[in-house]
Amino acid sequence: MTQEQEAIAANAAFYAAISASNNNAMALIWADDDAVSCIHPGWSALVGRAAVLGSWANIFAGPSPPEIQCLKPQAIITGAEARILCVEIVGPAVLAATNQFRLIDRRWRLVHHHAGEIAIAAANPARAERSRSVH
Amino acid sequence: MTQEQEAIAANAAFYAAISASNNNAMALIWADDDAVSCIHPGWSALVGRAAVLGSWANIFAGPSPPEIQCLKPQAIITGAEARILCVEIVGPAVLAATNQFRLIDRRWRLVHHHAGEIAIAAANPARAERSRSVH
Repeated sequence: MTQEQEAIAANAAFYAAISASNNNAMALIWADDDAVSCIHPGWSALVGRAAVLGSWANIFAGPSPPEIQCLKPQAIITGAEARILCVEIVGPAVLAATNQFRLIDRRWRLVHHHAGEIAIAAANPARAERSRSVH
Repeated sequence: MTQEQEAIAANAAFYAAISASNNNAMALIWADDDAVSCIHPGWSALVGRAAVLGSWANIFAGPSPPEIQCLKPQAIITGAEARILCVEIVGPAVLAATNQFRLIDRRWRLVHHHAGEIAIAAANPARAERSRSVH
């Protein structure tokens, strides 16, 4: 596989771990240091491995663990950094996601995840229009 | 200045350029290659320098160019990569932002921006609760 294919595969493994509510897989997917961070939709940023993995463990333990589909992943690779941009389908919501991976010991490890809703348009055109106009 | 202080300063320059609707400043702030990307709130990802700078030029030329305050910037630096996480205040909205900078020729250049609303809680607790539970 090319580096790009490997990065896309690492991204797919991230979503597979979410769908399986698999904490052990998440622990291997995220980089093993405290320079990791995560912005869940609607949340403030979490920084550090304990905070990030803990948030996923809480989500997995919740009443409705997420079913997330990742669509249209595209990789932007510069040296040992891979930024995967994709669209997430979470129930009725459509989100845009940034997944930043770093090549550590020849494996792409996740160092940052940021997901936020984008498809407010279908449900509420006025609100989506406001979002577009202000930023 | 330390590298962290320099990265925080680069991040501040980004928001100053937005507040001034300054296209020339934006052209210098973003890295000078096509490995740049941007996810505006409510938008799909834009990739490439023309698409990214063009989107900002369109926003600046619009009827209500944004006034954005950046609060609580925190830098996570690994080698030549700096990830700045901050909170943006845009009118009544509160957003979480990821700003990824890369040290190129001794200057921190922006390579990725992702901003999405987080403060839905105040306006609509039910919706915020749903977001938290699904992801």
